[in-house]
Formats: sequence, structure tokens, C-alpha cells
Amino acid sequence: MTTPKRDTYTPETLLTVAVRVFNERGYDGTSMEHLSQAAGISKSSIYHHVSGKEELLRRAVSRAIDALFAILEEPGARDGRAIERVEYVTRRTVEVLIAELPHVTLLLRVRGNTTTERWAMERRREFDQRVADLLKAAAADGDLRADVDIKLATRLLFGMINSLVEWYRPQSQGGGQDGDRLAETVVRLAFGGLRTEHAAADRG
Amino acid sequence: MTTPKRDTYTPETLLTVAVRVFNERGYDGTSMEHLSQAAGISKSSIYHHVSGKEELLRRAVSRAIDALFAILEEPGARDGRAIERVEYVTRRTVEVLIAELPHVTLLLRVRGNTTTERWAMERRREFDQRVADLLKAAAADGDLRADVDIKLATRLLFGMINSLVEWYRPQSQGGGQDGDRLAETVVRLAFGGLRTEHAAADRG
Repeated sequence: MTTPKRDTYTPETLLTVAVRVFNERGYDGTSMEHLSQAAGISKSSIYHHVSGKEELLRRAVSRAIDALFAILEEPGARDGRAIERVEYVTRRTVEVLIAELPHVTLLLRVRGNTTTERWAMERRREFDQRVADLLKAAAADGDLRADVDIKLATRLLFGMINSLVEWYRPQSQGGGQDGDRLAETVVRLAFGGLRTEHAAADRG
Repeated sequence: MTTPKRDTYTPETLLTVAVRVFNERGYDGTSMEHLSQAAGISKSSIYHHVSGKEELLRRAVSRAIDALFAILEEPGARDGRAIERVEYVTRRTVEVLIAELPHVTLLLRVRGNTTTERWAMERRREFDQRVADLLKAAAADGDLRADVDIKLATRLLFGMINSLVEWYRPQSQGGGQDGDRLAETVVRLAFGGLRTEHAAADRG
């Protein structure tokens, strides 16, 4: 016995399908027809749940944005020395990227053709700016090397973190551990550098 | 008096137009008609210069690939301690990205639907592997911190470097200086880390 597919759909499962299709075809390249085919339900069934594809986009990127901004409210991001806080935020950002990989992938790929896309890009910039502010505070504390431009460093840090959506694939059950190791590696590379102390000392 | 446009075209200027259109529309999304419109010459005039869009793609990505592999033949990449060589290659890779921005952008975006795209991806992987080998050699010399996985570090390093094609825009005449500073910042961040020594020492 099979249950008709449309009965099994909830806004949440529809969202999962939509995010996958958006990431595969690009948001611009996705029509309601594509979503209907991928979900195996009629367009009118989709309209029963949402007003259209832009609502699906907004829900999907909201999930990524909310998870990212929630990091900034955690004690590790609020208390203590700026350098510790920015390392904490870096580690947690990688963890959120991994936990919400399809949603963050979509967020990073939006290009600004609709109101929702422009809003998502604006929120992303706000998050980047909050991290840049933390880096500036760490620099003011004398905890960041003075010979690196903060604006460039912020871009390179996010360049490194965001590249994860292009190459990171969870390793089945080991995803959790795997993700912790990755987050720690990003923090070590970005803040400690790859060189050992003696190699750095050799250099002068 | 105007000279008919097609008389002014050379394979080189046609390539410049093609690279721009490929980067704007994606290689898959570009037809000979698009190239003809962008270049302002007929399709048959284009066929006078090249066999088709795949030849234009091959020429464009070859230019990026050749420039990247040429780095590995430079004295700074061949002589000395592995850690110095890998820092040299990192710095020069950033410089090549900036000097050949449209071509490298195209190289990084190819997705493997045609023989030429698959060949380009394979060459990219070879280059990444050469850098990974240098990092391994530096680790064997004890010059890389032991608590960072080399494979992950290689991916993060290229993630950071390659992100440049998404956000870097040359600042008119100052491009050269600007690019040198950027290359140096990437090396400092990746190998030295953002923390000052005393902040790192505080940590234990």
C-alpha cells in the first residue's frame, strides 16, 4: 500500500526539496514546474504550502542567517577578550556551515535579482561586518599582527571558510567529529598560521 | 570614418571577449550566437579564427594553467627549504590570479561537461597536488605545525586564494602595488597566522 505523496509533504520537507533544486539549478534557473517535478506533487499543492518560490528562498536562507546570527549571541562570542571571541565565532561559523550546509550554500550563492536575494546579501554583509568589528577590536588590543590589513584579513578569512560549501562533503556518520576537526583546523590556520614557531623564528 | 569591426579582430581580442562572456553567462550558457553578438561580428567570422567555443575555452584556460605551472619552474619554487618554496608558490599564485584574473576565474568555474573542461579540472588538481606535496615536504622538515592535517590545509589555502576571483577588483592604476600587498597578506595569514606572538603565548 502506498500513501499518496502529497499527503506526506509538510512545509519543512518541501523546503528541503526546494533547497536541493535551487542549489543544483540555481535560484534563477528554477521554475515552479521544476519544484513540482522534484517534489512529485502538483504546483497547486505547492501553492497550498507557500506563496511561491521566493517564499521558499526566504525560508531557506533565513534558516542559515538565523543560525549564523545566533552564534553572536552565544557567551563565547560576547564575553572575554576580542581575540578569543573572534576565534570562537570562526569555529562556530564553520560548525554552522557544516550543520546547515545546503542552506548556507544557497545563501552564499544568491546574486541579488529579487528583494529576498538582496535582503539575504545585506544580512550576509552585516554578519561579515560583525566579524570584521571583532577583528578590529582584537587589533586594538594588540592581539592581531599589525602588518595585516583587517579588511583584507576579513575577506580572506571568509574566503577560506566559505570555500567549504564547494568542497566539503560530510563523511556519513562521522560528520560530527569530522566537522569539529575541520572547525579547529580553520581556527589554527587562520590565527596560528601553518608555520611552526622555529620556522617562523628562522625567518627573522 | 569607421573601420568595419571584423577587420580589427584577432584571435587574441576575440579570446578576450569570449572570456568575458563565458564568465558572465557561464560556459554552458554561452552560445556562438552570444559570442557573435558580444564581439559584433558574424558567426562565420568567428569560425574564421577558431573551430568553435570549446577551442576558445581551451585557449583561455590554457593561459591560466600555463601561468600557474610556470610558477613551479621559477627558482623560488625549486630551490631552498620546502617551507620557503611553498610560501613563494603561494605568493606567486596570488599574483598570477590577479594578473590573469578573467582567465583564472574561468578556470575555477569550469564544471566538467566537455573534454576540455575535464582536462582543465584535471590540470587544476595536478597544480593543487604539487602544492600539497610541497606542504608535505615542509611538514617532514618539521616546519609545519603537526596538529594540522595537510590535505585539509591545502584545501583551505586554495579556498582562501581562490576566493579572490569572487571579490577582488583591481584598483585602476594601483593594481600592481595592490596585488603585491594582497599576495603578502595571504602568505602572512596562511603561514604566520593573524595572532601576535604574545596573544598566542597567552593561550598556552
